[in-house]
Amino acid sequence: MAMADEADRLTASLLDRCTFPPPGTDVTCAVSGGADSLALLVLAVSAGCDVTVVHVDHQLRPDSSADARVVERAAVRFGVPVEIHRVRVIDGPNLEARARTARYRVLPADVLTGHTADDQAETVLLNVLRGAAIDGLAGIRASRRPLLGLRRFDTRRLCSAHGLEVVHDQTNDDPRFARNRVRHELLPLISDIARRDPVPILARQASLLADDAEALDRLAAELDPTDARSLAAAPRALARRAVRRWLWTVDPEVPRFGHPPDAATVDRVLDVASGRHRGCDVGGGRRVERHRQRLVLSERVEGR
Amino acid sequence: MAMADEADRLTASLLDRCTFPPPGTDVTCAVSGGADSLALLVLAVSAGCDVTVVHVDHQLRPDSSADARVVERAAVRFGVPVEIHRVRVIDGPNLEARARTARYRVLPADVLTGHTADDQAETVLLNVLRGAAIDGLAGIRASRRPLLGLRRFDTRRLCSAHGLEVVHDQTNDDPRFARNRVRHELLPLISDIARRDPVPILARQASLLADDAEALDRLAAELDPTDARSLAAAPRALARRAVRRWLWTVDPEVPRFGHPPDAATVDRVLDVASGRHRGCDVGGGRRVERHRQRLVLSERVEGR
Repeated sequence: MAMADEADRLTASLLDRCTFPPPGTDVTCAVSGGADSLALLVLAVSAGCDVTVVHVDHQLRPDSSADARVVERAAVRFGVPVEIHRVRVIDGPNLEARARTARYRVLPADVLTGHTADDQAETVLLNVLRGAAIDGLAGIRASRRPLLGLRRFDTRRLCSAHGLEVVHDQTNDDPRFARNRVRHELLPLISDIARRDPVPILARQASLLADDAEALDRLAAELDPTDARSLAAAPRALARRAVRRWLWTVDPEVPRFGHPPDAATVDRVLDVASGRHRGCDVGGGRRVERHRQRLVLSERVEGR
Repeated sequence: MAMADEADRLTASLLDRCTFPPPGTDVTCAVSGGADSLALLVLAVSAGCDVTVVHVDHQLRPDSSADARVVERAAVRFGVPVEIHRVRVIDGPNLEARARTARYRVLPADVLTGHTADDQAETVLLNVLRGAAIDGLAGIRASRRPLLGLRRFDTRRLCSAHGLEVVHDQTNDDPRFARNRVRHELLPLISDIARRDPVPILARQASLLADDAEALDRLAAELDPTDARSLAAAPRALARRAVRRWLWTVDPEVPRFGHPPDAATVDRVLDVASGRHRGCDVGGGRRVERHRQRLVLSERVEGR
């Protein structure tokens, strides 16, 4: 059959640009029923992985169970087991973030997702909009995202070559989501100004920045954040990272914060390290003080 | 005079957000006659610096000498000497870059310029468009740019408070320059999507990335790029920087390149360091080879 041959050839050529674990590895693939995640399923099976498909039904539309049936049919066709999870997300503000939270609660931590280079470019630009530091600009990390080397049009072509029914997620057109405006307005404008396709450029940039961020993390981990002298002598970028990590680490005596300390708090601690101040508040009822060359983190005592 | 008081108050309050050298320092200010550079002149004088104004007339418009007269009048008013340089730039492709090259040929290396946070945001976005690595995303460096903490509207207000005549540079409206499309189309769209003013966000981001880039440079400088073992053991981001610097440094035996080696060349050298290959071409008729644990840079001999 010519069509099957064509589908096999395309699958093999796309697989060369993917980063799946070795054949025989157990993997769980998150499949919404869109082209990207269906391509993930097809390619993971072709890579020889032992695939389990999971689908999360957010029940946000009356017909959402139709998506689950599309996923079930694809899983049956490729002979892999499928799990359907129904979660309840109430429509309202921050819908996208809350749906993601609900989804990740039921998905295993090592689930593979179908993010492509287009998702990467959108994420980088969203993080530029938010003024994210280097870790945000490094975008989606490559681990557990085997399709980051593919484009969205590749996944559509693959689904079409295999004759797969694809779900069109209408929320991808909703301009209330910043990501959709990045996709439909910002990327086309950037493409017009730069006079070339910005997606591979942004994806390459993200990958270089991920290496930079990893190097900074590794070097900051070698710094002792309680040693004021070495903190003050270190490059500011490393000292900042070491302090941020220290304040954010679980301390048996004090409750852990839900988010890392902000830049102003970290800079105050560096002022204490350099001797400009003797101590400072770091939020959450905690305080950092310098005793000779040691920084000490303690619960703040009222009235002191 | 109430107006003079108002101008002085505004000058003092803007000066708090500038980074001029100490009073009495000799500084040269590049002044085009636009609001940003006229504000640079006013603020440098108020900071107590010994100011010399330089103006470059690119002679691109028949009336370009009118700009020089605006600058001369402002310099006279603030009692500082002024130098006018006439340079010849032919209209045509890459006009903006060629005008900048001509300008920097006549300006001293330590000249102060009137770049504001708005210029910083535009530069960061232009570098996002170009897929620049961290050094590009760090934007304009703060040294010799004392107004990076100000906004463009601050400089306009200041000129207006001092009753200064301001040149309107029509090339700032020309959509052939990518920078102008970033200013007039990309930034407004980003502002609309992010629902807040992106300029301070991008400026803050650039400053954090500049610290990160500086830390990486400092740590890469400690690596010996000819020691294959330490290169292979270092974080990839540092190894890349060390190799790039090495290949780009003047070697008494080989001519220097006009631009740094590209990422693919650097990655090939890292493959030689890790033992994957014995040697590789690095462009410009040069070759890197591994001899035991040493990398050796040499001129390539034909037929070897």
